[in-house]
Amino acid sequence: MEHIYFDSRKKNLVLLDQRFLPAQEKWFRCADTSDVVYALQKMVIRGAPAIGVAAAYGCVLAALEVKGGDAWLKSLEEKTREISQARPTAANLGWAVQRMLAACKSRIFSTATDLAGFWLEQALEIHREDVRSNRLMGSHGLDLLEDGDTVMTHCNAGALATGGYGTALGVIRAAVEEGKRIRVIASETRPFLQGARLTAYELARDNIPVRVACDNACAYLMHRQMVNKVVVGADCIAANGDTANKIGTYALAVLAERHGIPFYVAAPLSTFDLSLPSGEDIPIEERDPQEVRYIMGQPIVPEDVDVYNYAFDVTPHHLISGIITDKGILSLPLQDNTGAL
Amino acid sequence: MEHIYFDSRKKNLVLLDQRFLPAQEKWFRCADTSDVVYALQKMVIRGAPAIGVAAAYGCVLAALEVKGGDAWLKSLEEKTREISQARPTAANLGWAVQRMLAACKSRIFSTATDLAGFWLEQALEIHREDVRSNRLMGSHGLDLLEDGDTVMTHCNAGALATGGYGTALGVIRAAVEEGKRIRVIASETRPFLQGARLTAYELARDNIPVRVACDNACAYLMHRQMVNKVVVGADCIAANGDTANKIGTYALAVLAERHGIPFYVAAPLSTFDLSLPSGEDIPIEERDPQEVRYIMGQPIVPEDVDVYNYAFDVTPHHLISGIITDKGILSLPLQDNTGAL
Repeated sequence: MEHIYFDSRKKNLVLLDQRFLPAQEKWFRCADTSDVVYALQKMVIRGAPAIGVAAAYGCVLAALEVKGGDAWLKSLEEKTREISQARPTAANLGWAVQRMLAACKSRIFSTATDLAGFWLEQALEIHREDVRSNRLMGSHGLDLLEDGDTVMTHCNAGALATGGYGTALGVIRAAVEEGKRIRVIASETRPFLQGARLTAYELARDNIPVRVACDNACAYLMHRQMVNKVVVGADCIAANGDTANKIGTYALAVLAERHGIPFYVAAPLSTFDLSLPSGEDIPIEERDPQEVRYIMGQPIVPEDVDVYNYAFDVTPHHLISGIITDKGILSLPLQDNTGAL
Repeated sequence: MEHIYFDSRKKNLVLLDQRFLPAQEKWFRCADTSDVVYALQKMVIRGAPAIGVAAAYGCVLAALEVKGGDAWLKSLEEKTREISQARPTAANLGWAVQRMLAACKSRIFSTATDLAGFWLEQALEIHREDVRSNRLMGSHGLDLLEDGDTVMTHCNAGALATGGYGTALGVIRAAVEEGKRIRVIASETRPFLQGARLTAYELARDNIPVRVACDNACAYLMHRQMVNKVVVGADCIAANGDTANKIGTYALAVLAERHGIPFYVAAPLSTFDLSLPSGEDIPIEERDPQEVRYIMGQPIVPEDVDVYNYAFDVTPHHLISGIITDKGILSLPLQDNTGAL
């Protein structure tokens, strides 16, 4: 499923608009940086690795936007900063923009248009790399899943959350490609319903058996021994392995431990932010309360009542059985037996 | 808030239709037994004690429906059985119907109309008793809440779930009436959204500060020490204190224990079914998948993907700090220090 691409003719970044799935497959065209910031903030596209890929293409648009003259570099810095600050939690966002900036450090571009051409190559490479790293995570992680397993996952850590193939769903896809029979339980993931809308959508398209459960039903399914493994993605991993992921992940980790169910995180190394010592240091985004107050345009909370809308929570490393990365599986607390960090 | 009443002139049981709250205050009129069964099954009215009260009034309609002649007693038995089997989990449903039947055991009624008149008095008494028992729960439970507490509750165990005043919300109301400043976090309670729609609605009407959280956000709020107590209602309590309540209660109990937060159940003695040794024996209702697949009429799951819709789960007694009843507070495992059981 190609859900992010750069239209070189029209000079647009084109995104499958995830706000309308599965009911409608609409495409959202970003013509400039502000469109990209809007798409990230309103979750036209979401999922930390996909945010990173979209941000890389967004830098290309930034380069195309700046006018010539002395000020272009300053203007470019501003626009790339706007992109990298569009959302606070996903580590891959800052990582991708930093990588774009670093790539041109030792080079000289006489015009911003030259830079745009160079950056498009860089962005395409980041995109391809992300898909490759998902496939590597799949190959490292597939042995953790056994034939006949029912795997619970939260939110969407699939093709739609990445450049393609997926992190958590990539591990599941790799196990299925090996011939293992895997069933998936997708927790619906309020308020944005990524599990019900996106994970169910993409697994059903791939004919991988999937069934949706309300977030509050997951504990009961675990109690009834209907879940063998939990595999989720990540938005940011601190130096000690504490992992920020979609709100609700922490609850599943506590419940998995209580029921003796292994709990894995699948994420590329670009999701690690080693400048953050622990999960307490990860900034947690609070989003617009309207996302909780309305579902598909329908109000569900009385008008005068306030709501919480933290977008992420932090799972402490001691609840994580292992982090499946593109370089191998990390045990917790982090010992970096891959040599990659 | 009078949300259940018997219209003696029209011989209708009249219910505030909880499916449309808080957006619309519609009233649902039950003219006969089948209307009552429909109202219970479709959750026009829900909440175990309220179900019991509605069922008692439903028996009056059953008595009014049966024709004279030899067959009226048999027909009556059939109709009351239909009511008592409308939903499987709420213990108060069978309790109320049994109590109606028991009340007329040693009496002779020459006509079903005579019985209906007698039963209306009985139903009114069950209704009044339920409100009294909620007030008693409030007076027993209010000392468990401290001035300044933030209390998390799940689903709706308020006036709308009972004859009036509420079980869990009754305890909160009683503490507020004592002058304690209590804030409430209502978990939204998918799929029927009783927390977002009903608990928020009735607490806001009473000017008790309430804020709604998605079910999957509760663990994070506990981790951030934003919750001091959890108080919930119950649909059925087994002989050992294991408690069936709205799906998601079990998760909150596990999470409360992990965060050192006291977890209380508030329920009248009519919610106990001592014929059931433990929670494993409580029948758990599975409801129409469409309730999960659609929210306020909008589809949220791809058409070809199945869902789970267990309506309840069981919280084992060892996770419950105490059961607040109309006769006093029971410690777990049940020792019946009230002498009431």
